[in-house]
Amino acid sequence: MKIYDYKGFPNPTRVRIALAEKNALQAVEFIHIDVLAGEHREPAFIAKNPSATVPVLELADGTFISESSAITEFIDQHFDGISLFGTSAQERAVIHMLQKQAESGVLDAIGAYFHHATEGLMESYQNKDWGLKQKQNAINKMHYFNQLLSTRKYLAGNNYSVADITLFAGLAFADFVKIEIPPECKHLLDWRASIESRPAVASI
Amino acid sequence: MKIYDYKGFPNPTRVRIALAEKNALQAVEFIHIDVLAGEHREPAFIAKNPSATVPVLELADGTFISESSAITEFIDQHFDGISLFGTSAQERAVIHMLQKQAESGVLDAIGAYFHHATEGLMESYQNKDWGLKQKQNAINKMHYFNQLLSTRKYLAGNNYSVADITLFAGLAFADFVKIEIPPECKHLLDWRASIESRPAVASI
Repeated sequence: MKIYDYKGFPNPTRVRIALAEKNALQAVEFIHIDVLAGEHREPAFIAKNPSATVPVLELADGTFISESSAITEFIDQHFDGISLFGTSAQERAVIHMLQKQAESGVLDAIGAYFHHATEGLMESYQNKDWGLKQKQNAINKMHYFNQLLSTRKYLAGNNYSVADITLFAGLAFADFVKIEIPPECKHLLDWRASIESRPAVASI
Repeated sequence: MKIYDYKGFPNPTRVRIALAEKNALQAVEFIHIDVLAGEHREPAFIAKNPSATVPVLELADGTFISESSAITEFIDQHFDGISLFGTSAQERAVIHMLQKQAESGVLDAIGAYFHHATEGLMESYQNKDWGLKQKQNAINKMHYFNQLLSTRKYLAGNNYSVADITLFAGLAFADFVKIEIPPECKHLLDWRASIESRPAVASI
């Protein structure tokens, strides 16, 4: 299988960590898309993903999978090893909910700040007020996750999951755009250090 | 189990259709949240879902699940009957991707129009330009799904799935806010009529 992405970008990071947790980075051929030069908006890439976002997974039969949460679900089910999405209906639902909150509340909110309130990737439409509002929403969500992590080791409870990967990538995005994690969010900062020290996370 | 919602609203509709497809509407106690009166912003509800959105699922052990995609995944795994999320890794990834596209590209985009460019639910922050942009994005996505449905019966291929439910609820939201499905989107309109005629969909 192939993955079209840009190493180090937030959503590609989610997929690469999931692969690393499965010891499966070597099973994938990575193809660099020069997002900074606008390659993701060219017809050859739009044919793979009309939403013009990286990463995109190409399966052996030519099927293209976009949306990082879908790609990581594929990785989780396709490769052996640690379960990232959970097993029981309840466990899966809790992980699903928390990944969604981390994605829309932190990663995508910081993306909105980046694309609308900074130069971003030179999008044709920008709405600065929306970007600044989303920055504030992301900081509010950091406080929410900090509170959650005061009583549990990982986002979804006792077990590491894809929800942790998504929030971790969101905080890396925050670093990139110079949004500080509030220093009083000590549980969040401790959790982040614990994720950062995982061999799979450190390896990508 | 209990579901806190507002019958007829777009996200509650997703969950009710999923339950109806499983013949499981009777297994749930529905609790009405008076969203029009702001009950979803009161402390008792915020304790169940800090994001202040309906629906919320309460499980027997007191766990609260918010995010409609997570609630419907729980329903799919917990109840017997038709599979809404797919089985193989590839099938699940395709359904996951298409549900995400229908959610963010249509349902949530129309929600942004509703909350920001109309009176909405009297939110304290409104950004009209953002709302109007999202209306245009939703219409663009209708054309995208129309194209997709020119070669397949359901969003994810030959099988009905949760992606169809999410897009269907998104188009019902479009009706509510008077955004017309472009009449040239004949495949989308035919697909919509076929979903509408499903016994489960007609029953809720």
